[in-house]
Amino acid sequence: MSVKAGKNHLQFRPHFKTHQSAEIGEWFREYGVSKITVSSVSMAKYFATHGWDDILIAFSVNILEIDDINRLAQKCKLHLTLESIESTLFLMENLTSETGVYIKIDTGYHRTGILSHDVNQIDKILNIIKTSKNLNFIGFLTHSGNTYDAKSKQDIINIHEESIRQLNELKLRYVGDFPEMIISIGDTPSCSVVDDFGEADEIRPGNFVFYDVMQLFLDSCVVGDIAVAVACPVVAKHPERMEIVFYGGAVHLSKESVNDKEGRKVFGLPVKISKSGWSEPLVDSYISRLSQEHGILQASQEVFDSIQLGDIIGILPVHSCLTANLANQYISLGGKKISKMLIENHGVA
Amino acid sequence: MSVKAGKNHLQFRPHFKTHQSAEIGEWFREYGVSKITVSSVSMAKYFATHGWDDILIAFSVNILEIDDINRLAQKCKLHLTLESIESTLFLMENLTSETGVYIKIDTGYHRTGILSHDVNQIDKILNIIKTSKNLNFIGFLTHSGNTYDAKSKQDIINIHEESIRQLNELKLRYVGDFPEMIISIGDTPSCSVVDDFGEADEIRPGNFVFYDVMQLFLDSCVVGDIAVAVACPVVAKHPERMEIVFYGGAVHLSKESVNDKEGRKVFGLPVKISKSGWSEPLVDSYISRLSQEHGILQASQEVFDSIQLGDIIGILPVHSCLTANLANQYISLGGKKISKMLIENHGVA
Repeated sequence: MSVKAGKNHLQFRPHFKTHQSAEIGEWFREYGVSKITVSSVSMAKYFATHGWDDILIAFSVNILEIDDINRLAQKCKLHLTLESIESTLFLMENLTSETGVYIKIDTGYHRTGILSHDVNQIDKILNIIKTSKNLNFIGFLTHSGNTYDAKSKQDIINIHEESIRQLNELKLRYVGDFPEMIISIGDTPSCSVVDDFGEADEIRPGNFVFYDVMQLFLDSCVVGDIAVAVACPVVAKHPERMEIVFYGGAVHLSKESVNDKEGRKVFGLPVKISKSGWSEPLVDSYISRLSQEHGILQASQEVFDSIQLGDIIGILPVHSCLTANLANQYISLGGKKISKMLIENHGVA
Repeated sequence: MSVKAGKNHLQFRPHFKTHQSAEIGEWFREYGVSKITVSSVSMAKYFATHGWDDILIAFSVNILEIDDINRLAQKCKLHLTLESIESTLFLMENLTSETGVYIKIDTGYHRTGILSHDVNQIDKILNIIKTSKNLNFIGFLTHSGNTYDAKSKQDIINIHEESIRQLNELKLRYVGDFPEMIISIGDTPSCSVVDDFGEADEIRPGNFVFYDVMQLFLDSCVVGDIAVAVACPVVAKHPERMEIVFYGGAVHLSKESVNDKEGRKVFGLPVKISKSGWSEPLVDSYISRLSQEHGILQASQEVFDSIQLGDIIGILPVHSCLTANLANQYISLGGKKISKMLIENHGVA
């Protein structure tokens, strides 16, 4: 991803919400990364404590966290995300030091952000920013999460190009007033599949650090790119249904699912783990159900016969961000423990 | 639930996997509870450390955890769950002290357990137990999780009665050899809805301590029974779609969903929180989508207009077990912090 960003003259500001690990964060420095993206104030605090000094919180500002934001802005170069006149006014009145701000644009995903044609609202926000001494306009940011519903690589490319078109239209409108402004995109499917980033100035993918079954089914990665698996012990076998029960449920993998080509709901794919890595997903087998701590592997006859009580199977997660969030640490194939931010740091104000 | 158990002469062994809190566990002692159920060895360790000395791990034994099991069995009266000849033989050979064992029976849920008509396998397991000095047969246990798919209260009652019928058939077959044996049932929908527990000797419900939207939709509780909500700050409003965006996503609520009567996928119900409690769910409004940290409240016009940026809305969770698991502590309406087991204690061997 770093090479791709370099080739396309893009600023690379990876999202760290997937791994949530200071130690894994260090690996990015070897690729020249010095600016990062996070999804919460608590995550920004964690990475600021671990030596990161240019942090974008790519989540619309929660005004109840203003005290923490002000403290953080004194420790590092902090960038916030705005999408309303109210929050812009609030920050203008309550920020105590200079802070970068991105305006969040909705280019079609419709989760949140200002619709790109709503220039009336954008004009007003930028006028407030101009009069504010602490708000520093960085540019327009989008997250094209609608690529996750794409039916093909071409679909992903089309969604990406439409996002860039809309963001660039905004850039052309405002660049005269803000000559340094940038446009920033984020989703891993686009960043993985696209070669031509057009007018984009910055990319913020996060999931690509691990990838997962969802990305695999989207063709935005191959199996060999998936870098995390959950090690689950087998506790029961049911030959009459070809089901293997393992200790690994929604509290380990999350309840995220994705439909496979046959329309089956998949909660993960099973692999065999060895010291040097893991196998391809086991043929004609998948995780068909999850409850709090139970997982059910629907197995082919061959796979069923090859797995015994007390074996450990690897489960490739459907959504690695949610799965990693549920773990307190990673363990490498060589047995090395890799620490991460603990879940108790996820504050809700 | 305690009164109901008393009236029906049932042993009450509540499941503590929902709250995972030593402090909340203490509330149960006031109702005479001295025996508990948990879902993992790590949870058993946590509660043993907090003074519980009669603990059932209602999860088929993970033979890789034998060392922890042996240590635990020396600290408290430990009960394990078995469902295969292999694991029974393994325990016979590897247990170092006397341990109670339940045999897990599948009465129709088909998640795991021995099918009740498979008396051939049950005979073999019981014969091993008879010859083992450390295995102490307690009885047959089931979890009728299929009540969660029930379409009506009568459906729940029917599933419950069928479970009891199957378990009692087994009891009649084996009680001559094991005169002290019991039959034990577990799911919260049955325990909430049923008045006649028939031949059951023990109940192990857990979710009822908090209940949730899933139980509400099943009619196994009323809104006033739901005892936890996630407090979520509002970060954006989208009048063109009547959507309110809040900071509260799959990492706070879990990705569990349930369909409402209109067939809509619901990820939670919004309430207004006050110092004395919370409101009924806000009319014609529900949580329609969740991503990692974003939640989307699809609101009626009236609800939309009544909620402003920076407000905190309460979200009643779809599945309180998974939501509570994601939190590091509870906060009472009066501001008191209630500690719980932390997620880093969920070991996977």
